[in-house]
Amino acid sequence: MDMLNVAQTVLDSQPFSRLLGTVIHSISAEGITLELVLRNDMLQQNGFAHGGVISYLIDNALTFAGGGVLGANVLTSEYKISYVRPAKGERLQARAVVLHSGKRQAVVRCDAFIITADSEKLCATALGTIVSVPDV
Amino acid sequence: MDMLNVAQTVLDSQPFSRLLGTVIHSISAEGITLELVLRNDMLQQNGFAHGGVISYLIDNALTFAGGGVLGANVLTSEYKISYVRPAKGERLQARAVVLHSGKRQAVVRCDAFIITADSEKLCATALGTIVSVPDV
Amino acid sequence: MDMLNVAQTVLDSQPFSRLLGTVIHSISAEGITLELVLRNDMLQQNGFAHGGVISYLIDNALTFAGGGVLGANVLTSEYKISYVRPAKGERLQARAVVLHSGKRQAVVRCDAFIITADSEKLCATALGTIVSVPDV
Amino acid sequence: MDMLNVAQTVLDSQPFSRLLGTVIHSISAEGITLELVLRNDMLQQNGFAHGGVISYLIDNALTFAGGGVLGANVLTSEYKISYVRPAKGERLQARAVVLHSGKRQAVVRCDAFIITADSEKLCATALGTIVSVPDV
Repeated sequence: MDMLNVAQTVLDSQPFSRLLGTVIHSISAEGITLELVLRNDMLQQNGFAHGGVISYLIDNALTFAGGGVLGANVLTSEYKISYVRPAKGERLQARAVVLHSGKRQAVVRCDAFIITADSEKLCATALGTIVSVPDV
Repeated sequence: MDMLNVAQTVLDSQPFSRLLGTVIHSISAEGITLELVLRNDMLQQNGFAHGGVISYLIDNALTFAGGGVLGANVLTSEYKISYVRPAKGERLQARAVVLHSGKRQAVVRCDAFIITADSEKLCATALGTIVSVPDV
Repeated sequence: MDMLNVAQTVLDSQPFSRLLGTVIHSISAEGITLELVLRNDMLQQNGFAHGGVISYLIDNALTFAGGGVLGANVLTSEYKISYVRPAKGERLQARAVVLHSGKRQAVVRCDAFIITADSEKLCATALGTIVSVPDV
Repeated sequence: MDMLNVAQTVLDSQPFSRLLGTVIHSISAEGITLELVLRNDMLQQNGFAHGGVISYLIDNALTFAGGGVLGANVLTSEYKISYVRPAKGERLQARAVVLHSGKRQAVVRCDAFIITADSEKLCATALGTIVSVPDV
């Protein structure tokens, strides 16, 4: 089974990802881009994407990117996220790239963009650690 | 309007929080505890609470705790979360406590617990910065 | 060799810790407190302890606390630090406590205090991950 | 006074930076690179650069990069650092780049490299927030 199929199978088996409608936009050995269409029920009180939705998408992208180098059985050990701009737009993308990987953990960077018909803007950036499951 | 009413009003105006069914468990000048009942559509592929759900609840608790000292018009600037244990149980609680606050930002700690009928266990811990909105 | 002797031996073998004069203030199974006397050559441009000195002491305390549960052969995988107050005083203490430990990693919290003859104040707080060396 | 002179003046007025011998390698509107020659008294017990030295250099580079967009009177509010590789070599460089800046805070990324005569390797990466001093 190729990398995309593995990632798609894991994503399909996450009820929370199905609730939010996350899709795999692109995937490679170096990283992954996850995307979701922002619905009204994903917003906060000012009409922006809720930080929890952005965190979710980044967390998931971090894990999947780590899984690309460590194997499918991984989890996010930790991450740090900085929000840089309120996210108002049609779609949200989280683009994760592996910075370094060892035998049992990978350090992954992820940027989240808010996308409209004619623009895309950075709304958050994150740095996290993914570990092989038996290693925690 | 007292502190609980302010927080409840903001929470009620967050569509994403309504989607997940978040409630205010308790609130004081020092912090806040948010809670949600884990539904099947909040899980990941192994039957645990999705990290994104835990992140969401922590993010929201951090913001609300910061708002308790800085005023209602705040947002989460950034946070770091460490997952320490898979979260399997009935309810999820995020307990946020303000460690330090200045005029324009507060540093807040938040622990997330997974709760069953007869136990509660730490599943994640976080540290974040909340800022007054005009200050970013 | 008991816990204190192990920690003292490691500390003595760190040239950078000898340069700064770090001492072990106290140690237990749950954590460790490291301390240093602030010298003029540890300050920044406004006369406060340089953030790098605080970071160093926290980083070291995190590692030593993790070593207390994982064994002496550990390293700091990552940490996040929030500075909450400029540090002006005689001594700096970093108090690290293990929040959770598994077979191969520990999550550790550390608070740094600036201490004078009659007061102590929180100047920074941190959250980090310590890993066994063969596991990275 | 131009940007380099401002930065050099601040660096010269930091006793801890003089102790470690930090120099400005390059500077621009987008960021800064700080460098130091690793001396024996900057190592840890295994002969690598002490994490505290790497943290110091990253912390300082984050602050200086933030100062480039926010003005000289800034401080590091917080940062997260992930160590990816033991640092053994002649020189250490911290390269900081501003990702986003508002009126009162900037989000800055910083990578640290260990450099020998014929190679350079990433040894740590960080993400932090710099704030204007009156704003904390």
